[in-house]
Amino acid sequence: MFVYADNAATTSVSKTALEAMLPYLTQNYGNPSSLYSFGQKAAEALQSARETVAGCINADPREILFTSGGSEADNQAIVSAAKLGARKGRKHLISTRFEHHAVLHTLAKLEKEGFEVTLLDPHADGVIRLEDVEAAIRPDTALVTVMFANNEIGTVQPIAEIGALCRSRGVPFHTDAVQAAGHMPIDVKAMNIDMLSMSGHKFHAPKGVGVLYARRGMVLTNLIEGGAQERGKRAGTENVAGIVALAAALKESCEHMEENTARILPMRDKLFAELAKIPHSKINGSLAHHVPGTVNMCFEGIEGESLLLLLDDNGICASSGSACTSGSLDPSHVLLSIGLPHEVAHGSLRLSIGEYNTMEEIDHIIETVPKVVAYLRGMSPVWDELQKGQRQHLI
Amino acid sequence: MFVYADNAATTSVSKTALEAMLPYLTQNYGNPSSLYSFGQKAAEALQSARETVAGCINADPREILFTSGGSEADNQAIVSAAKLGARKGRKHLISTRFEHHAVLHTLAKLEKEGFEVTLLDPHADGVIRLEDVEAAIRPDTALVTVMFANNEIGTVQPIAEIGALCRSRGVPFHTDAVQAAGHMPIDVKAMNIDMLSMSGHKFHAPKGVGVLYARRGMVLTNLIEGGAQERGKRAGTENVAGIVALAAALKESCEHMEENTARILPMRDKLFAELAKIPHSKINGSLAHHVPGTVNMCFEGIEGESLLLLLDDNGICASSGSACTSGSLDPSHVLLSIGLPHEVAHGSLRLSIGEYNTMEEIDHIIETVPKVVAYLRGMSPVWDELQKGQRQHLI
Repeated sequence: MFVYADNAATTSVSKTALEAMLPYLTQNYGNPSSLYSFGQKAAEALQSARETVAGCINADPREILFTSGGSEADNQAIVSAAKLGARKGRKHLISTRFEHHAVLHTLAKLEKEGFEVTLLDPHADGVIRLEDVEAAIRPDTALVTVMFANNEIGTVQPIAEIGALCRSRGVPFHTDAVQAAGHMPIDVKAMNIDMLSMSGHKFHAPKGVGVLYARRGMVLTNLIEGGAQERGKRAGTENVAGIVALAAALKESCEHMEENTARILPMRDKLFAELAKIPHSKINGSLAHHVPGTVNMCFEGIEGESLLLLLDDNGICASSGSACTSGSLDPSHVLLSIGLPHEVAHGSLRLSIGEYNTMEEIDHIIETVPKVVAYLRGMSPVWDELQKGQRQHLI
Repeated sequence: MFVYADNAATTSVSKTALEAMLPYLTQNYGNPSSLYSFGQKAAEALQSARETVAGCINADPREILFTSGGSEADNQAIVSAAKLGARKGRKHLISTRFEHHAVLHTLAKLEKEGFEVTLLDPHADGVIRLEDVEAAIRPDTALVTVMFANNEIGTVQPIAEIGALCRSRGVPFHTDAVQAAGHMPIDVKAMNIDMLSMSGHKFHAPKGVGVLYARRGMVLTNLIEGGAQERGKRAGTENVAGIVALAAALKESCEHMEENTARILPMRDKLFAELAKIPHSKINGSLAHHVPGTVNMCFEGIEGESLLLLLDDNGICASSGSACTSGSLDPSHVLLSIGLPHEVAHGSLRLSIGEYNTMEEIDHIIETVPKVVAYLRGMSPVWDELQKGQRQHLI
């Protein structure tokens, strides 16, 4: 049995998205910047996609910028706010310690350029506290950027509250909504969000296309200079087919959000309930504030990487953290940020379930994981020491 | 009859490219950064694409970086050379006045940051002279960037000669090869090219994917920070389907280059020969140094935009210059750079022919353009003044 349980890393392209994009990979290949009607057909498709995406998050179409993905959107949002702030003498940036690296590395680059960065720690439940954001804001704060939902542990942050706080303090607020878009309701107006990033391939559009929402009045800095595409804010011939697919996929995900969630939650809850029976295991991140599909757990005494390889042998696609860092041997910065000791964080497993999964697949995971954990513990010197009392259990 | 004659703006996706990419839009949707075998399938496709692209330009696969397009590649190449130069106290950049705006606007940004930019003028034939490049090089020159072939007039620059010069003087050399890749032979080693940009959609791959070739040892600056994709030099989940399509399209174009050129040249030559019979017309750019498919002409006394709209009414897709600036009312900076007066540059037409065009389509253009030019001249006050001798002919 093949079970794809890594939907937080990427998703399959939906039939709807594929059908929407195919005409733009075949007969409608015009350049949207061309004057003739054949090019204008592509321009109309772009405009329609912009309206669709705007409609899904209660934005204005003019506030939607298409990018090559979530990372580009994160980079552009943060760099833009920093440059704008610097012009007003504001060089302080606030974020959290468990953001995606597209945020953290951009902040690190700005730090080298003379900006000061405050990284807030999430609490042990994987949630940032509003009062911590409030305490960090200074007169020279140029940006608060807090992710909507964490990509590894799935915890959802108090975005509307942070948005209201930032608006009242006159500080621009960006959220990396890569894990939330298409999976949770987003209303940029009601939530007082100034900038927001999305990545198409996390909600059944293809890889290589994303969105930066920037509220009217936010001054953007170009990462890519050149032609006048995207209102002069992002040069380069538009990825028309990808953009059309993104809009179709987002619309479909938003229209079916309730029913998808209703389908995913029982699968996720069963996973949690059954896998939590494994001794010396731990669920990471509060279930009270959670995206529907993500399950993150630690199993003491084993290495996450070995677990993944054996799950792969059993047809199960899962990860230990972000796919973007899967080549790394360091434990997840997210798990460390919520207070897990190194040796526990090493034994992590992220399963991320989507609406295409079935209860049969969940059952296969539930049968397989305990066997694999037991097998690995059987060969683990650390587990051996734990069993013999030569080492203390941490979970 | 529908005639697509704007292949320099964008091309249709080839059957080969579409077939190559489709599996990565359907069943093979894994994230190439994932450890499990399903993700590694995507990683292998990326690696294979990298090898294919490298093979087409005599590069090493490790020297190939996939980007979201030619503009991003141009931006990253130029910014990288500038930052590297600045660290060595070199803040002088050399380019030409008729580059694509992805180059010119990036240089303008760097100029604001304290770099000094020398823009060389092409001669009236649309070709940059080696001695002009040589005269411009200074001890503090950080980069020479000269396009391989001009996007509006199709003239090819002495790239191998400039490459040899730059290498001998220890100055990094970048070329925007967006119009050349897939259409002309490129050998980065023989031509001493340090960095080179390509855009997939100019050679029958989809829009939204490009290549930056950077010779080993060239230190790149990231435009997009985040995950460790593309050897840490370009973050963001890779556009796997687009990259696979790009490689397939480039390989196909390179393998059939001679036969494509042999097919295109007679069509282009007939176009030139017949349209040149229109009185007071002018061919722009030397035919001695030319990409196969591009025809750029001026017709006195008319506006390029009106010409395009009437050609569109007759089913012909053409442009007056770069699609990226087609919203602009200014005359082409390229035509001005080769010495055309404003009023002549306004009446320009670019036809760009590809191997999918037919001689019947060329005949339709040849029948239509003179009629449309005559019709527009009949309504043109400028043409009226020219006829009455109240104004001097410029061509």
